[in-house]
Amino acid sequence: MSILVVGSVAFDSIETPQGRRDRCLGGAATYFALAASYFTNVRVIAVVGEDFTAEHEAVLTSHGVDTQGLEHTAGKSFHWTGSYMKSLNEAQTLKTDLNVFESFSPKVPAVYQDSDFLFLANIDPVLQSSVRRQMPNVRMVGGDTMNYWITGHRDNLAKVLTGLDALLINDGEAKLLAENSNLVLAARQILAMGPKVLVVKHGEYGATAFFGEQAFDGKTGGSRTPFRAPAWPLDRVVDPTGAGDSFAGGVFGYLASQPKVTLQTFKHAMFYGSVMGSFAVERFGTERMQALTREEIDQRFALFRELSHLD
Amino acid sequence: MSILVVGSVAFDSIETPQGRRDRCLGGAATYFALAASYFTNVRVIAVVGEDFTAEHEAVLTSHGVDTQGLEHTAGKSFHWTGSYMKSLNEAQTLKTDLNVFESFSPKVPAVYQDSDFLFLANIDPVLQSSVRRQMPNVRMVGGDTMNYWITGHRDNLAKVLTGLDALLINDGEAKLLAENSNLVLAARQILAMGPKVLVVKHGEYGATAFFGEQAFDGKTGGSRTPFRAPAWPLDRVVDPTGAGDSFAGGVFGYLASQPKVTLQTFKHAMFYGSVMGSFAVERFGTERMQALTREEIDQRFALFRELSHLD
Repeated sequence: MSILVVGSVAFDSIETPQGRRDRCLGGAATYFALAASYFTNVRVIAVVGEDFTAEHEAVLTSHGVDTQGLEHTAGKSFHWTGSYMKSLNEAQTLKTDLNVFESFSPKVPAVYQDSDFLFLANIDPVLQSSVRRQMPNVRMVGGDTMNYWITGHRDNLAKVLTGLDALLINDGEAKLLAENSNLVLAARQILAMGPKVLVVKHGEYGATAFFGEQAFDGKTGGSRTPFRAPAWPLDRVVDPTGAGDSFAGGVFGYLASQPKVTLQTFKHAMFYGSVMGSFAVERFGTERMQALTREEIDQRFALFRELSHLD
Repeated sequence: MSILVVGSVAFDSIETPQGRRDRCLGGAATYFALAASYFTNVRVIAVVGEDFTAEHEAVLTSHGVDTQGLEHTAGKSFHWTGSYMKSLNEAQTLKTDLNVFESFSPKVPAVYQDSDFLFLANIDPVLQSSVRRQMPNVRMVGGDTMNYWITGHRDNLAKVLTGLDALLINDGEAKLLAENSNLVLAARQILAMGPKVLVVKHGEYGATAFFGEQAFDGKTGGSRTPFRAPAWPLDRVVDPTGAGDSFAGGVFGYLASQPKVTLQTFKHAMFYGSVMGSFAVERFGTERMQALTREEIDQRFALFRELSHLD
């Protein structure tokens, strides 16, 4: 099955204790698309400027990503400058140049209408809603957001949440969104806002999925037990950028590769998400996401099982 | 099999967002002993003052804990005053009255010499070493420590580490002990200091065991894959005091209940440790540890499996 992602395709300038990179290919949609490309067909909607060359586009197309939805326009691409010198757990944004993203109005090409899955990466909730409306028949919708939209654009975000099957955010974002410092209570409140599943990412500690009553058409066997996927204990984190987007790409890529989304496939998807996140941080930018094999992915999946399973 | 624990039996005055308790029964050895008592025979070595009454001792003995090693002396018992008003993840110590603990010199009673397991709870490493020396024939030794001993008594602590099969500490302590901010590298360095297994406790995110080459007599099938046990996502944390000690009591209590310590039993022990930690925080002080059944424990163990296992 196919998955459509809308989000940023950008250039990142990154500084970490392991070194620095200037204007390397990045953006949530890029990481998501590359990660998901190891599992299924991926289509991307984003806007890029004149600095985005055929060589950059080939990074996506060489992984089978359909870039017909990539809008090329005059000006410069979105450029993010960040640092992890203070902490590997949280990016410090030094500069955000929206550039061509400032006037982005995403349009879903007709050839994308038959996409089975839709992922609304972290962008203005107004744009997320617009894309959601243009894809009324999609089977499953996932989404991401961040503190900026939670605090300053709550009403617009609330509209997005009502149309989501799954929301993927981190601990801090979940607690901020629910205004509750207890994660379980926060999850309960967020599930009441619309999403059928809430996935909370814990960085180096993995991620937990909380299931609403409507998850998997109510077919969870009556169980409301959350599900936790571990993260891989890494002896070297080169660049944390894109870990969460690669996680999301792994989750939805795997789901889209399965005949049916069930509680069981969702648990496996959580593990594949963690696997992709663990690879993403091993090198700068999208370097690792560009150079994987499905065999490596499945080998690490087996290690995740060994890491967390009793038998 | 039997397990001997040396550590504090104390009174705690605790303040949390859920309320406060003055001078309730506490101390690392108390939490450890109660948690382990659901699995095996437990013996305790500690010192208490005149304020420690027959009623307090009955809390331990009613759970089958052998208190022949409890030294009653003139003066007041160790008294800790702490607050979790700022954060449930870290206790803020308001006052530490060592009292009778100041001149404690633990002596292992002759009747305790046949103990199979020894746990050196968080006390002065000089006292930990003294007890370790008095128990030359014990089969397995576990230990705990804290920042205070790591920063100010490093040489004494180093001697303890060489005699440990397993060290159980939290993330911050592990990074401080190894002077390394990457947990995997820190674990490698700590395993080189003596312990065959290092268990790092992550609070609400569970715990990870790292295995040295000598763990389980080198019989880990050549695998150096760590093992992570989740923590239970709780919708209400009443009092975090003693969670780590209850975790340790669960780990070693379960190990001591098994015919042999293998990689397999250790993984199960990690889950039982997390189970006991998750119960401990549900009520103030040792209230929950006093009022459990083995059935409740095994029911939650099953939930932990559902929380973390794919199949």
